[in-house]
Amino acid sequence: MEKKKVLIIGGVACGAKTAARLARIAPECDITILERGEHLSFAGCGFPYFVGDVVKEYKELVCTPLGIIRDANFFRNVKNITVHTGCLATKIDREKKTVTASNAATGAEEIFPYDELVLATGASPIRPPIPGNDLNGVFTLWTMPDALALKSAVGSGKVKSAVIIGAGLIGMEVVEALADRGIKVSVVDFLPTPLPTLVEEDFGLRVKKAIEKKGVDFYGGEKVLEILGEGGVVTGVTTDKRTLDVDMVLLAVGIRPNTNLAKEAGLELSPKGNIIVDDHMRTSDPSIYAGGDCVLSKHAITGKLVWQPMGSTANRQGRVIADNIAGLDTPFGGVLGTGILKLFNLTIGKTGLNEAQAAENGFDPVSILIEGPDRPHFMPGMGSLSIRLVADRKSRKLLGAQFMGGGVADKRLDSLVAAITGGMTVDMLADTDFAYAPPFATALDPTTHAANALRNKMDGLVRTYTPKELTERMKQPDPPLLLDVRTPAELDLQGRLPFEFVNIPLGKLRERLGELPKDREIVAFCKISVRGWDALAALTAAGFDNIALLEGGVMAWPYELK
Amino acid sequence: MEKKKVLIIGGVACGAKTAARLARIAPECDITILERGEHLSFAGCGFPYFVGDVVKEYKELVCTPLGIIRDANFFRNVKNITVHTGCLATKIDREKKTVTASNAATGAEEIFPYDELVLATGASPIRPPIPGNDLNGVFTLWTMPDALALKSAVGSGKVKSAVIIGAGLIGMEVVEALADRGIKVSVVDFLPTPLPTLVEEDFGLRVKKAIEKKGVDFYGGEKVLEILGEGGVVTGVTTDKRTLDVDMVLLAVGIRPNTNLAKEAGLELSPKGNIIVDDHMRTSDPSIYAGGDCVLSKHAITGKLVWQPMGSTANRQGRVIADNIAGLDTPFGGVLGTGILKLFNLTIGKTGLNEAQAAENGFDPVSILIEGPDRPHFMPGMGSLSIRLVADRKSRKLLGAQFMGGGVADKRLDSLVAAITGGMTVDMLADTDFAYAPPFATALDPTTHAANALRNKMDGLVRTYTPKELTERMKQPDPPLLLDVRTPAELDLQGRLPFEFVNIPLGKLRERLGELPKDREIVAFCKISVRGWDALAALTAAGFDNIALLEGGVMAWPYELK
Repeated sequence: MEKKKVLIIGGVACGAKTAARLARIAPECDITILERGEHLSFAGCGFPYFVGDVVKEYKELVCTPLGIIRDANFFRNVKNITVHTGCLATKIDREKKTVTASNAATGAEEIFPYDELVLATGASPIRPPIPGNDLNGVFTLWTMPDALALKSAVGSGKVKSAVIIGAGLIGMEVVEALADRGIKVSVVDFLPTPLPTLVEEDFGLRVKKAIEKKGVDFYGGEKVLEILGEGGVVTGVTTDKRTLDVDMVLLAVGIRPNTNLAKEAGLELSPKGNIIVDDHMRTSDPSIYAGGDCVLSKHAITGKLVWQPMGSTANRQGRVIADNIAGLDTPFGGVLGTGILKLFNLTIGKTGLNEAQAAENGFDPVSILIEGPDRPHFMPGMGSLSIRLVADRKSRKLLGAQFMGGGVADKRLDSLVAAITGGMTVDMLADTDFAYAPPFATALDPTTHAANALRNKMDGLVRTYTPKELTERMKQPDPPLLLDVRTPAELDLQGRLPFEFVNIPLGKLRERLGELPKDREIVAFCKISVRGWDALAALTAAGFDNIALLEGGVMAWPYELK
Repeated sequence: MEKKKVLIIGGVACGAKTAARLARIAPECDITILERGEHLSFAGCGFPYFVGDVVKEYKELVCTPLGIIRDANFFRNVKNITVHTGCLATKIDREKKTVTASNAATGAEEIFPYDELVLATGASPIRPPIPGNDLNGVFTLWTMPDALALKSAVGSGKVKSAVIIGAGLIGMEVVEALADRGIKVSVVDFLPTPLPTLVEEDFGLRVKKAIEKKGVDFYGGEKVLEILGEGGVVTGVTTDKRTLDVDMVLLAVGIRPNTNLAKEAGLELSPKGNIIVDDHMRTSDPSIYAGGDCVLSKHAITGKLVWQPMGSTANRQGRVIADNIAGLDTPFGGVLGTGILKLFNLTIGKTGLNEAQAAENGFDPVSILIEGPDRPHFMPGMGSLSIRLVADRKSRKLLGAQFMGGGVADKRLDSLVAAITGGMTVDMLADTDFAYAPPFATALDPTTHAANALRNKMDGLVRTYTPKELTERMKQPDPPLLLDVRTPAELDLQGRLPFEFVNIPLGKLRERLGELPKDREIVAFCKISVRGWDALAALTAAGFDNIALLEGGVMAWPYELK
């Protein structure tokens, strides 16, 4: 029997994974990869750390853990996979089942036959049509040549200041890389706060404050009009509000899928140009699979097709494609929109739906924001975490979570990813047997506290305001009286909310309840609103009945303090 | 209406949590705690870190994060809870609904009426009836006075050597505390390997090797016969195999529940003396609740009653008790047997069932052992993890997981806790959208790899040996030929399996296949058995059909290497 010919276009994440998995489970296949670039299976997600010199040598990003470069020889000798680098696929003939490709160096065309074709063509950075976008000193960060060029510029010592256009994941990862290397960094985004697709505005505001503390300027809600240059070299950036004098510009405004080949072959695409695949990663042509950054994926909660161009998604999809080519009938499990970022000493991440997305998708969402320590206060390394949980009121199922803070957030995020994938309710999460020992967690993990707080809110045991809701409420007639139950020393240290407030430390509250009006709404809080909740109990016991809690306390307050 | 009188016996974890929760959600209750000791709500799980001087002052263990001591005044002023310390409950009169208690200082008796009673009486360390167990220098570590006495002895500079009797969680936590303070530590346990209730023997053997590298002696399978003394002071310990000259002994052989009070009141107890409660934490007397170390809890997988005396369980149960007293109808979610330990640079933990427990409970278990990095090899701080996953062949549901290594294990453990709680299958776990960025994980998380490896095994894509199975197999007739596909340099660095083997580095394997016999079973492996699996693909393609993989490779090999 002749071997089944599997042709894969693209050899980075999804393509390389498809090939590696297939070689293991179906050694009877003849596997060929066509890769337009020179590098295979490289760790593109590591580029910001390469630019920041956390990773010293680019070879580390293209090597196995043993230091062997994953080049065509490696794929041949170790995996029995044929690889053509510098080989640009230009046409798919679906009837003849062939792909035409041209050699980047010689221009020579070659025709590759296939029984099964895999499109892992990835995506490319958007280069916005701003005047000056082709000046020397304007970079993107997507390919290995991009990374080498950017690191070389950064390492030259000539770059003193840089503007990053776009405050998404890649842009913000490079913020840290450049700032760590002593470069004055400014970030411009047309949206008001950083990381708009990752977290909601209040977390974004806190990220803004955090990077400003590190000397980074953030200009939100500004549109870049022009990149200025002199002698072909970048000298500045003009927005609709200011001009910044800089030596370097990074364009990080987003990416678009590489799907011209699929489009010309008549495969079904989404309106925005992503390839449509079924739950086995098959395109509209049953002999052609696609995965990675070029496709849409099913959202595991909403069932809708969404774009999640992540290395993790690409690897998972590559494995699914290989399984199905090998006849294993493996469906793809879908995505949850999970994302995570390390930014200086902060970790910021999310999974699932936020409240607005949940409402758009027909849920009746309710959320809570809590703040708390990631391990007992007496253990070294303790850090704080903000957690926002979203659940559906009716089914009580968890829908989403967002995390930020100096504490260990990735662990809690992944627990929530599993909890949501498993269809857990907020009640189950509140009573889950998470691992406890003082080096790792508080006796009840912060996620447990968050789930309990959300239950309290859902069940009407407490009425709360988010920071945003309270800010809105304070603008309306008869604003509530704020009851700050921290100690006076904490007020000086942590700051005060910018409203009228009464300060009665919790330990004195029961004896000083007479100072508070019973005919006015009272909103209690403290540093993290745990004592604030004890205050509500004291107020309730004394007959106060128009009372509420500020979610997250002063620590999670994203606006100005006085 | 008169206030509902809630009386709580025990004010540490479950009792204090019950009181605090109840005060918040039912301010109409009159809450009283009777605590036999002097300290309330102390962090007993922090004692090993206090002894190790990671925690400097004992006050940190009894304070709020703000530094306020959680004493009777605190409970009164902040929580409106009445606390009697040094108050030993001696009798429950279920008909009159009263508890008699005696004042530890004065001996005076007092009678406390209740509408609802909560037994949070905890447990006490077992003091085995070994001659010499009352000598000066023999310690337990359970109460605050225990912790103060042990730390004082350790800090005196007079203790040069110590024996810890019992290699469970507490014993092993103190190993690190004492070793870090320069004390020569020996551990004796009647079972052969450390942490027998936490991990299986292979992980235990690796823990033994790890602590021996830190200068700790471990004597497994030995029975302590006598603690030796001179002038009333410890001088040594005699086991059935040796005598150890030491200045100090820590008894850490286990604990037993404090349930005499419940027993005398005629409440239903288990054969081993734990209080039996229903899923709302009610004892056989509907006016009496119990929780924490003194009760049995329902295992969330097996439904059986098990003992899980952990601070986390106690806190969760306290909350459930409070909810039910307040009329909220909250069931307890059960336990999974989750446990975790930091031991020098290792993290060791487990949740759910191991293979033997799963089989005992009617499942058809299958497990996999994998080894892998916790983040990309190019990122600083990368550590390795061993993961053992257990699933049921029929339902494919996850049943348990064990972790050990220098990598970040607590995160993966908690993800598995959530996955098992949510009823996830191994297929769902393999395709879960975990958070990926290089500082936090590999593109496919180690748990994803473990799930995939287990699927490969379950689905017959690969046949494997665990280290134990291979060791057994090598003793039988016609032992397999071992195929080590590491580089020669790795063999020198990492060691060799103690059997006949052929070493052909993976990159050379395809051209050297002729050197291998087709009529003999071949078991391939490498450092972590990923290249080992690529080797199987090469063998399969060349027509070898009696081949298998060593799970976890050399890194997870628990026995001697040569």
